[in-house]
Amino acid sequence: MAASALIEKLNWRYATKKMDPALAVPQDKVEQIVEAVRMAPTSSGTQPFELFVITNPELRAEIRKVAWDQAQITDGSHLLVFAAWDNYSDARIDAVTAQMTEERGEIPMLNKYYENLKSTYLPRDETVNHDHAARQAYIALGFALAVAAELEVDSTPMEGFDPAKVDEILGLQDRGLRSVVLLPLGHRQEEADWLLPMKKVRKPRADFVTEIA
Amino acid sequence: MAASALIEKLNWRYATKKMDPALAVPQDKVEQIVEAVRMAPTSSGTQPFELFVITNPELRAEIRKVAWDQAQITDGSHLLVFAAWDNYSDARIDAVTAQMTEERGEIPMLNKYYENLKSTYLPRDETVNHDHAARQAYIALGFALAVAAELEVDSTPMEGFDPAKVDEILGLQDRGLRSVVLLPLGHRQEEADWLLPMKKVRKPRADFVTEIA
Repeated sequence: MAASALIEKLNWRYATKKMDPALAVPQDKVEQIVEAVRMAPTSSGTQPFELFVITNPELRAEIRKVAWDQAQITDGSHLLVFAAWDNYSDARIDAVTAQMTEERGEIPMLNKYYENLKSTYLPRDETVNHDHAARQAYIALGFALAVAAELEVDSTPMEGFDPAKVDEILGLQDRGLRSVVLLPLGHRQEEADWLLPMKKVRKPRADFVTEIA
Repeated sequence: MAASALIEKLNWRYATKKMDPALAVPQDKVEQIVEAVRMAPTSSGTQPFELFVITNPELRAEIRKVAWDQAQITDGSHLLVFAAWDNYSDARIDAVTAQMTEERGEIPMLNKYYENLKSTYLPRDETVNHDHAARQAYIALGFALAVAAELEVDSTPMEGFDPAKVDEILGLQDRGLRSVVLLPLGHRQEEADWLLPMKKVRKPRADFVTEIA
């Protein structure tokens, strides 16, 4: 079986450890990656997160300090921060319904659907709801990684940071958001990256996949 | 800005509501989608989930019953079930370290890294760890959706099911796994799908993206 074009790119990508500070990602490629995040499917179309695209060097230096000093944050040219809703709310779900109605016309079934959704989500614990929102952001992270790879932009998904501190730096709490994952974008500095020459390690298909026919 | 080839495919995809039961997804395309899941990056390379690929019609009919009777589960030809680790454990993380050592050679830094990881993960609440594992599965879900779209395979990500019941049907508990998301694969039955003619709704970029330069 020949690998698809995208699979080949997914093999090309890796969690880049050393990015070249001299090579910025062209803005049109960044726009495509942002668009992939925006197009990602989310539960009931709520898109329960926002995306921050940070180029400001001082701000990235501050974030780096609360992210285990990972150099890609400042060696890359762009830092994406995925920030998920802290909770679902009446207003947030009503805004989703309102936009759908505006773009698709009045659909009674749709209003009923989102009223049901509210009666499920709103009584739940905030932690459960934030976690659910965060998972949706991770689908979009997958899309961002895929389109970055397609365009041969390097990226490093990062969970190793202090979310409360990043929230403070970006003022997320006041906006009802919580940072969940970072994605610096840049270009690999080949000779300086210890991970690049190493074999990509993945579980064998047989240990990872169960087929039931 | 011209959309990249993949962005065009991400616009082509939608959460298919009606799949054509007469059109099976060719096995080589299913293999590519499975490979995308396997290649997806995960936190510290743990790959803390497994993938079930179900074609068995009786089993899919059973799952459909505990998934709001969603027809794509049986109208499609393949059902992917993403099942995340219920928890991290010494044995699971040691297996990751062992495989890396086998494939990359002995690296003292690597052993230290995973010992630190254990000291962080193992004392944590099971819910926190399972949730963390589930998020990794969602990155892979994003990869599956992207490669399915690339190959013009339709798919419908589904959270609307009773995870405990699906776990029971598939015997996941004994394997230390919990179902987190379903992805039926198939081909859209265009004239019968109420969603297909509707506009794809996404938040405008200005409401969704904040740039800090």
